[in-house]
Amino acid sequence: MNVKQRLGRLRPLLESAGAELYVAARYPNTYYFTLAVDVHGCLLLGRDGSPRFVVPDRAVAVAEELAEGCEVVGVPWGVGFEEEVLAEVKGLRPSCVLMDDASWLGRMQGLRDVKLGVRPELPASLRRGKEPEELELLRRAAEIADRGVEAAFAAIRPGVWQSEVRLEAEYAMRRLGSEEAAFIVLNTGSRSAYPDICRADRRISRGDLGFVDVGPRYRGYIGDMTRCFVVGEATARQLELLNAVRRVQEEALGMIRPGLRTREYDLAVRRGFEAAGFGGNPPHHTGHGLGLGEDVPYIVAGGVEDILQLGDVVTVEIGAYVRGFGGARIEDDVIVAEAGPEVLTRFPKDRVVL
Amino acid sequence: MNVKQRLGRLRPLLESAGAELYVAARYPNTYYFTLAVDVHGCLLLGRDGSPRFVVPDRAVAVAEELAEGCEVVGVPWGVGFEEEVLAEVKGLRPSCVLMDDASWLGRMQGLRDVKLGVRPELPASLRRGKEPEELELLRRAAEIADRGVEAAFAAIRPGVWQSEVRLEAEYAMRRLGSEEAAFIVLNTGSRSAYPDICRADRRISRGDLGFVDVGPRYRGYIGDMTRCFVVGEATARQLELLNAVRRVQEEALGMIRPGLRTREYDLAVRRGFEAAGFGGNPPHHTGHGLGLGEDVPYIVAGGVEDILQLGDVVTVEIGAYVRGFGGARIEDDVIVAEAGPEVLTRFPKDRVVL
Repeated sequence: MNVKQRLGRLRPLLESAGAELYVAARYPNTYYFTLAVDVHGCLLLGRDGSPRFVVPDRAVAVAEELAEGCEVVGVPWGVGFEEEVLAEVKGLRPSCVLMDDASWLGRMQGLRDVKLGVRPELPASLRRGKEPEELELLRRAAEIADRGVEAAFAAIRPGVWQSEVRLEAEYAMRRLGSEEAAFIVLNTGSRSAYPDICRADRRISRGDLGFVDVGPRYRGYIGDMTRCFVVGEATARQLELLNAVRRVQEEALGMIRPGLRTREYDLAVRRGFEAAGFGGNPPHHTGHGLGLGEDVPYIVAGGVEDILQLGDVVTVEIGAYVRGFGGARIEDDVIVAEAGPEVLTRFPKDRVVL
Repeated sequence: MNVKQRLGRLRPLLESAGAELYVAARYPNTYYFTLAVDVHGCLLLGRDGSPRFVVPDRAVAVAEELAEGCEVVGVPWGVGFEEEVLAEVKGLRPSCVLMDDASWLGRMQGLRDVKLGVRPELPASLRRGKEPEELELLRRAAEIADRGVEAAFAAIRPGVWQSEVRLEAEYAMRRLGSEEAAFIVLNTGSRSAYPDICRADRRISRGDLGFVDVGPRYRGYIGDMTRCFVVGEATARQLELLNAVRRVQEEALGMIRPGLRTREYDLAVRRGFEAAGFGGNPPHHTGHGLGLGEDVPYIVAGGVEDILQLGDVVTVEIGAYVRGFGGARIEDDVIVAEAGPEVLTRFPKDRVVL
């Protein structure tokens, strides 16, 4: 993880946009260019010289300890913070400033004769090109996710609370080095038709359909993996849904290659579910970039068209969500490689009746 | 927890502001008026009739299951979502609309002849008046925080990683019903001079000064508690700092009463540290409201003046942070009562050498 190289990749992007300065105010953009874990501040990235990292006074010592290759500037938090950032920007006399955070746009409008632009996609696009060390961290995060699902599956039985299962999954992952679970979604029964996190607790029953989606965070990098199940005994219709999800997910995995258009991929998933008799349900995203959190490309019906690049790390996150009945999802993390997807998450997909 | 009563308290505020509609787009404001855990959407609160909760299609079922006293409207996520909210607002023909989220201001500017205002403090001020059931949840969250600190203290010893201690604290709290730790800050050694969360891991050594700040979340309500320590053996200067923090914190606790001006309180804390020889360090907040997360009043040097009200629940969060040396903090949760503060967090403050 070499912040100098990262800056070296940012600077041509600034140059071709005609900007002298990029202001990164959002985490993990500040982390990406400094390696300062959990330090929030405003990072001024010029076309030359060291970046200047403006942080609250109380964070100066920890920023100096953790941040690489930048000058740390401490200022009082509050209104003074904004003024200091503006003074720093003025001092660089830029004619065009880009930034990652729209809320800074208004604050900078007092700068005379300076063109301003909100361009959060610049650091996001850089992060798509993963370094070998980043790929290692993502492989490790995926291994931890495998163990998280294993712990969840071991805990699921009739009568147990969802919260207990979530805790066992988190405990197992953190014992393996996950800093925390960025998220654990466990939806069961008819509530499994809801694809997102819902912490309203629920006791698991025999016959419940459900899925568990674990998100360990290993040295900042996220694993993201989902497996689905039925508790005890499955009905024919439940098995039909589980089989459809598995088939469509494996077809989607097989599509992953450099050059794949994300709309084409998303559409193929929807058609797969229609053919299987589970079409027309409310859409959820079908994948997203993975790194220091969820990232571009964000693949969803009606979303921005994107094209997978060699070395992208993405999730293949395929689910069907049937209101009143339940839902299921299978999600793997993959590296987009020339020879086909390198699948990082390996927990079996055929262990569906727990 | 009666959402009807909550609406009944909001409506006079709308009336006196001359507004017919409040648009709550932020969590936990939506939760507060619906009790729909983890459902994100846009809640339209009119001066009469049932609130309308506009949520993404895929969240309709869970919103209908969890939300009380409102009509759930499902719309496709994306641009259509915004349009649907605007159409709903137009249909109510308001002359003045207030909202909790500045990002909706721009989107609403197409509404002709409608006055718009961003007033996030309206729901925040309502939440200060805690209901008896909310106080019970906060008492329970504080008890869980006590046990979290106890588990952390039991795990701290030379050679252990901070991440291991954080995990034991979280595991203990979740076994007692915490849905998750909203946060656990554990800063040791010279990094204890940093008051905020820093997940960069560190192995704890004999002689380290440090503090642990645990934030369990019990049925949505947060406990928030800090205790400080030295590992193994303390130097005279470390004990001096620990004693000063304890003395200033107890003085601050003694000030808590209805009518207290928050600036006066914050200033007294700073003077206390100056008198103890630990003045002039970068300030951190010295307390904040507590409920569904951190809340108003937010007490910090240079912050907005506020006055404590009977029934407020606040933290008394007193620390000194000495760059290059280390820091310490003690934090309790208290209910502001006529007879003096009702302190909810009870873990002893004199167990400082572990």
